[in-house]
Amino acid sequence: MTGEQFRSLGYELIDFIADYHDTVADRPVQSLCEPGDVAAQLAAGPPEHGDGLTSLIDDLSTVIVPGLTHWQSPTFHAYYPANASGPSILGELLSAGLGVNGMNWATSPAVTEVETRVMDWLVDLCGLDDGFRSTSDGGGVILDSASSALLTAVVAARFRAVGHRPAAELCAYTTAQAHSSVLKGMRVAGFADDQLRIVDHDPVFAMQPEALAAAMSADADAGLVPFFVTATVGTTSSCAIDPVPVIAEISKKHDAWLHVDAAFAGSAAVAPELRFVNAGLDQADSYCFNPHKWLLTNFDCTAFYVRSQQALTSSMRIVPEFLKNAASESGQVIDYRDWQVPLGRRFRALKLWMVIRWYGAEGLRTYIRHHVELGRGFDAWIVEHPSFELVAPTNLSVVCFAHVDGNERTKHILEQINEDRAHHLTHTALDGRYTIRVAIGSVRTEQVHIEALQADLAALA
Amino acid sequence: MTGEQFRSLGYELIDFIADYHDTVADRPVQSLCEPGDVAAQLAAGPPEHGDGLTSLIDDLSTVIVPGLTHWQSPTFHAYYPANASGPSILGELLSAGLGVNGMNWATSPAVTEVETRVMDWLVDLCGLDDGFRSTSDGGGVILDSASSALLTAVVAARFRAVGHRPAAELCAYTTAQAHSSVLKGMRVAGFADDQLRIVDHDPVFAMQPEALAAAMSADADAGLVPFFVTATVGTTSSCAIDPVPVIAEISKKHDAWLHVDAAFAGSAAVAPELRFVNAGLDQADSYCFNPHKWLLTNFDCTAFYVRSQQALTSSMRIVPEFLKNAASESGQVIDYRDWQVPLGRRFRALKLWMVIRWYGAEGLRTYIRHHVELGRGFDAWIVEHPSFELVAPTNLSVVCFAHVDGNERTKHILEQINEDRAHHLTHTALDGRYTIRVAIGSVRTEQVHIEALQADLAALA
Repeated sequence: MTGEQFRSLGYELIDFIADYHDTVADRPVQSLCEPGDVAAQLAAGPPEHGDGLTSLIDDLSTVIVPGLTHWQSPTFHAYYPANASGPSILGELLSAGLGVNGMNWATSPAVTEVETRVMDWLVDLCGLDDGFRSTSDGGGVILDSASSALLTAVVAARFRAVGHRPAAELCAYTTAQAHSSVLKGMRVAGFADDQLRIVDHDPVFAMQPEALAAAMSADADAGLVPFFVTATVGTTSSCAIDPVPVIAEISKKHDAWLHVDAAFAGSAAVAPELRFVNAGLDQADSYCFNPHKWLLTNFDCTAFYVRSQQALTSSMRIVPEFLKNAASESGQVIDYRDWQVPLGRRFRALKLWMVIRWYGAEGLRTYIRHHVELGRGFDAWIVEHPSFELVAPTNLSVVCFAHVDGNERTKHILEQINEDRAHHLTHTALDGRYTIRVAIGSVRTEQVHIEALQADLAALA
Repeated sequence: MTGEQFRSLGYELIDFIADYHDTVADRPVQSLCEPGDVAAQLAAGPPEHGDGLTSLIDDLSTVIVPGLTHWQSPTFHAYYPANASGPSILGELLSAGLGVNGMNWATSPAVTEVETRVMDWLVDLCGLDDGFRSTSDGGGVILDSASSALLTAVVAARFRAVGHRPAAELCAYTTAQAHSSVLKGMRVAGFADDQLRIVDHDPVFAMQPEALAAAMSADADAGLVPFFVTATVGTTSSCAIDPVPVIAEISKKHDAWLHVDAAFAGSAAVAPELRFVNAGLDQADSYCFNPHKWLLTNFDCTAFYVRSQQALTSSMRIVPEFLKNAASESGQVIDYRDWQVPLGRRFRALKLWMVIRWYGAEGLRTYIRHHVELGRGFDAWIVEHPSFELVAPTNLSVVCFAHVDGNERTKHILEQINEDRAHHLTHTALDGRYTIRVAIGSVRTEQVHIEALQADLAALA
């Protein structure tokens, strides 16, 4: 592809994306596709000759876009949001365009140094403690997902406890409200399911610390080794917040590694009045949140912090001859490949750098506050509506509710809402109760979209 | 960011990237930075107010680009290449712009269906066997890296052997020439280092099958369980090719899972005369190669194939309530989240779709053949040069050589070459011998760049 061809198609795609975002609100938010619909419109085999991509925009418009559920729609309130702001999209473009690999400092120093700098910026922006700064014993790194952060933390915790080996005596702890990535990470890391103890949660779906203390003590008394605790700040089902300060105390007693997963909620800390989400973090061994959920940065961008760089890198570092270099041996540089499972690394820090520069601390605060405000308003509407009730307290911008007539009715309402394709909501079960979740946090969501949702819910109630 | 702002900055960045690629050959291929140089030019803290990115292009030109080692330079022959072609860069832009998450089919059907289709296209393009097609019991998925593919294969293999549990009786096998990701994956998965048996290699750095057979039998006789074998097609150090057909036979005898890692070399199979790289693959349980290395697709894009979808997904699947949906329950769709460790997924298939459509099968063959031709020419030049000798046979486009005066002299030459910044080469050790590697595979590498390298080497010889 010549430079001229690249420019020409590039401008076209920039326009396509701008148009897409300008019109995404008008599309059915959830795809109307049936299984196989998209595949049927794609050639069965690869072309023998290049086709110049002349039909690309057509194919995008007629085949690909109708097959999408539109995560960037302002009426997408399903799962948790996946923010893709303009500066982050362009940051990703730039990263792909430069095409460098930052596995080691030496393989492209700017990749590492920009990443270190923006991870420190996030410490400032979120009011995290200095022990997560690169200038301390700890530091931060960008991973692809909170699932990978969890796995990485489990492996580092095990290495600290017993080294690398199968370890049937180790026990980990979380609640049934934690993300499925905790169990998945434990399985991938080679543990049996019953080595993950499910600790009771309280009526608002937060971990019961007395139950944690009892479980850890019972295991220790039985000669087992409590080694890893996952606390969640903002659970996936209801945005419940585990009491991290007291969980940290209990974990410390047993020398267990405390990982705090704040995948969605962590971004709220850019607003000082919402820094209750940081409570106890200064006692955590590792912490992650996803700017790709609620901080305007497109997937993938998980901010993963550790209290001890050494504890992490000693568990991950392998130095084959072909990666040896003078900079690494000098000890003056960070090699982020030792902070993660894969070896290769995109220049993901660019998009975060561009997002923070574009919005500034003030813009990020305003953004988060706006969604929290929308969440409060929607919460108040549910509370006042005679046919709906909250199933969990509203934390931040996540509202969990049900119809007073019970599960069948609630489920029917959700199905109707999604069938109309005007809004997209998903469900969960909270202690057996079928619950509709409204997670507010898309880049373009405004009051008018919440009011439209309320009108449609009222009509179905 | 408004649509107009996005368009304006977007065009600027498209131009910046086009200019970057047009001029990358003129830059010092390896960054001249000292540790801290880039960081010192970045603000210590985040801005309070957004700065509109007006200085972005300046910062890129004066701070970021000088801090890069230019993987897209035609004189970059270090490590293995990281191809970033025009269509793939634009595919990544499009993926970021659409901002959808393909964790399940239902969360954006086109993400899954385009991926399934292009993974089948790769089966056609590379002449892989039908058992890796989505229409068989097996199939393919895009992961971020060969490291993740290895880890995923280990976990699936363990699950097939004994379920999820610490398993001190399991043994895995590979050679000292295998990538460090094998040991890393084993550690992450919870094995002790001595559970990975290092099988002897022969004088051309390929696995000795008799040694494998002996090691597996000895372990089985001792009551241990051989469960996993990694064969490499195109090792990182010298592009050596393990004898997969006979390794497959031996693995099968012990019901061990055979994973074939062809991260670099696999792309060669687009040229039928190079399909010796596929020998024995039809007997492998899993296979991966990286279009992001040598098939014009920017990082990250690893093609990972399994013989049994069920063996993989049963080891990875966890279905929390909040992800349940009618399409998944119908059994008619693929949910790729069950084919990988993380949950979230970018729309990575777009870039592969655009690359294959742009170049066509013919363009991809021509591309690979060109590099293999350059490699052969450089190999012949080394063979004829009185001061240099090959340390390993040249497979595909990777040439490993040393100075006849020994390690110190070879090392000195490498240092001189890299110090001049006109070319970037890296080294390895092959059975103790310090070896310079020239891995030819960058998008813009031509005969003239190889000739310039030869001239500089001749001057130093």
